[in-house]
Amino acid sequence: MTDLTAALSKADSNLDESLERLCELVRIKSISTDPAYAPECRKAAQWLVDRLNELGFSASIRDTAGHPMVVAHHDGPQSAPHVLFYGHYDVQPVDPIALWSSDPFEPEIREASPGRKAIFGRGTSDDKGQLMTFVEACRAYKETHGSLPCRVSILFEGEEESGSTSLKPFLEANADELKADLAMVCDTGMWDAQTPAISVSLRGLTGEEITVKAANRDLHSGHFGGAAANPIHILTRILADMHDDDGRVTIANFYDGVKETPEDIKAMWDGLGRTAEDFLADIGLSIPSGEKGRSLLELTWARPTAEVNGITGGYTGEGFKTVIAAEASAKVSFRLVGDQDPDAIRSNFREFVKQRIPADCSVTFTKHGTSGAIHLPFDLPELVKAKAALQEEWGKPTAIIGMGGSIPIVGDFQARLGMQSLLVGFALEDDCIHSPNEKYDVRSFHKGVRSWIRIMDALAK
Amino acid sequence: MTDLTAALSKADSNLDESLERLCELVRIKSISTDPAYAPECRKAAQWLVDRLNELGFSASIRDTAGHPMVVAHHDGPQSAPHVLFYGHYDVQPVDPIALWSSDPFEPEIREASPGRKAIFGRGTSDDKGQLMTFVEACRAYKETHGSLPCRVSILFEGEEESGSTSLKPFLEANADELKADLAMVCDTGMWDAQTPAISVSLRGLTGEEITVKAANRDLHSGHFGGAAANPIHILTRILADMHDDDGRVTIANFYDGVKETPEDIKAMWDGLGRTAEDFLADIGLSIPSGEKGRSLLELTWARPTAEVNGITGGYTGEGFKTVIAAEASAKVSFRLVGDQDPDAIRSNFREFVKQRIPADCSVTFTKHGTSGAIHLPFDLPELVKAKAALQEEWGKPTAIIGMGGSIPIVGDFQARLGMQSLLVGFALEDDCIHSPNEKYDVRSFHKGVRSWIRIMDALAK
Repeated sequence: MTDLTAALSKADSNLDESLERLCELVRIKSISTDPAYAPECRKAAQWLVDRLNELGFSASIRDTAGHPMVVAHHDGPQSAPHVLFYGHYDVQPVDPIALWSSDPFEPEIREASPGRKAIFGRGTSDDKGQLMTFVEACRAYKETHGSLPCRVSILFEGEEESGSTSLKPFLEANADELKADLAMVCDTGMWDAQTPAISVSLRGLTGEEITVKAANRDLHSGHFGGAAANPIHILTRILADMHDDDGRVTIANFYDGVKETPEDIKAMWDGLGRTAEDFLADIGLSIPSGEKGRSLLELTWARPTAEVNGITGGYTGEGFKTVIAAEASAKVSFRLVGDQDPDAIRSNFREFVKQRIPADCSVTFTKHGTSGAIHLPFDLPELVKAKAALQEEWGKPTAIIGMGGSIPIVGDFQARLGMQSLLVGFALEDDCIHSPNEKYDVRSFHKGVRSWIRIMDALAK
Repeated sequence: MTDLTAALSKADSNLDESLERLCELVRIKSISTDPAYAPECRKAAQWLVDRLNELGFSASIRDTAGHPMVVAHHDGPQSAPHVLFYGHYDVQPVDPIALWSSDPFEPEIREASPGRKAIFGRGTSDDKGQLMTFVEACRAYKETHGSLPCRVSILFEGEEESGSTSLKPFLEANADELKADLAMVCDTGMWDAQTPAISVSLRGLTGEEITVKAANRDLHSGHFGGAAANPIHILTRILADMHDDDGRVTIANFYDGVKETPEDIKAMWDGLGRTAEDFLADIGLSIPSGEKGRSLLELTWARPTAEVNGITGGYTGEGFKTVIAAEASAKVSFRLVGDQDPDAIRSNFREFVKQRIPADCSVTFTKHGTSGAIHLPFDLPELVKAKAALQEEWGKPTAIIGMGGSIPIVGDFQARLGMQSLLVGFALEDDCIHSPNEKYDVRSFHKGVRSWIRIMDALAK
């Protein structure tokens, strides 16, 4: 363990510079969902390539039909496994911008609460801060030993927040190059600020946009009100119909493939001691809103959802306009679990919508992301090693948990490259990812770097 | 009738100049609902004052807490009645701007259909073109006779499209100055392009904006979905609940004060020969959407409605964002008939909404316009005279009709100044008021000018 001590000390003494490098990356406005920011996405990719080449990786930008990939390789001992590290350099949009306390693209290190420093800015937690924990772990190890404990490949994506459209074709076209013994994905969270976690299940996602069209133009609600169809009424009825009074989704066959969580797993989750009240209090709520009769962890890890992520129609500016809109639209996503089929969900949803469109109106659909749910084996050897390494760094047993979000890459690694993924991350519940004032604790970043040093070392043994 | 012929000929020879003056007024971007356009509203008011002073009126701008009023007076014979003409110089917003064929504020005279010229631009029909028919009628008469047939006062408002907030206090403060024997309001339509109409009933309006608030910030739908309340779900349920399967509004006591239309009136309306199919075909629809078992004219003239005019919440930009919004809002308006009480409707609606807000969420309300419905006596002598004058100009019997829209001024004239209002206008169904490509037929404008000459003359006899 002497080797480890030196590399860990190096991570400590590097911290200020490491943070400065993270700030540089956060300043790049790599919003993937909005085409206007495409040049910024490329800039972020190039910045990462430059940093990795500095560390002795052989790194390059790899063009796709969308935003580019970053691929890098570094040799390691024959005896150790070959790992592929994955992260994404793209970030979510920043609206509503008025709610940010500091510029989302001018990172600021300040106290998040007394005695607890964090770096604030879009992508600090999701996922630039997280991926930089691994890059800085490689740096500290390399600077200490002149080498890495394992053979390491890296894949950074730029479309994770916008459906990962290029990912599957890229993995297929570069399967030989990217296939490793194990993937390591850093896009998840700690159990709490003290307790490290490895996620073994992820919910899948089906995203769909619907636009209901009625009259051929906007109408005066005085002249036409009472006679002309209002697409907002049609849309709100459809969306309201999606759930019954018990919070269950009413779309046909929606629960096909959803398994009940085994009693022993539910008991372990209950032992983690997170109540709905605690979880919701932080966001100003108190009543779980989903399916009745389920625990909080079931609701967010093991049950599917139907969620309206955005809706718009008619006049939404200041003041009032007595108009009947020509169309109204909504963005809807489904979080999936077990063996739910994302494509079947999409087509059943479309059918559900079509059945509710009056004969003289119409609807159009736009497909967004699709990914199935993921479940990893509890006894995977790499999982066992990483669990112990994390416990050593954080001084507490590692929680083996589920995740409510989707990380489509994990399914793709499994399906296309036959690789299991180790999901280790250091984000915290209050990081405000996808929201104003996103942050990443300096402690998450610092101990995250140290954690990867320990995990790489453990995997090599 | 020799006198009339000369004034009517003058209206004919003035036409090109009259249209040019209308274009000047349309070029002024007097959107009252958006505070950014306040200087343009004042500019429109000043332009009208200048035109009226040119004609020998004593005209001035009169400041209010909102946009200014224009008030003007002109003497007339003792033997003739004193009339107050009302119009509004403010216009609706122009979005969606992309759907306009020409600049909404750069009026263009072109064919609306073969052989039928119209002037296109925001406010050409609602209400700048309409009010200018009266101003140009006064001009033609004055240029012919050096006088007007009646004593005429004019009131032009700048807040008709944004709730007429300043109107009531202004009428109260200036009641002595504005009280006349009869009001004439030009903000309504023809029955069809051949048939003049006088409107004897108007629906009232209650406008209300609601904002549902759930979590204290936008949330990631993966982390929180299934546990955290989604304000879009709450809002869409509320809005969907507003109507039952028969299209009736479900808010408590909503139909209090709504009278059944007498059978003879319904028969007269049926005789006008407008079918739902014809009416809806023009806007690309075919199925009446309101209360089941009612005729089209009942639905749009004699039945109340609840209509969502705008809705917004969550991510509505390009692409997809898997967010659970912190809040969602909608603008809702109610068209009222008979003795429905606008304030009771508002408070019953608020109660309806509050009952549907979960205990850990909240809702805020913003009040917009309020006006009761209006019904004029069928045997009003001025109505009988105007009916004959219009028949003479257009060569067809004048239709006595209802209107689906609201003109709050009419209620205020009745309640505050004890004046009946004669509702005469020349707008056509396809004028696209409040929509892109608003227009006013040149024939409406020309014969509108001539109609007012005839009406003023008839009232003076």
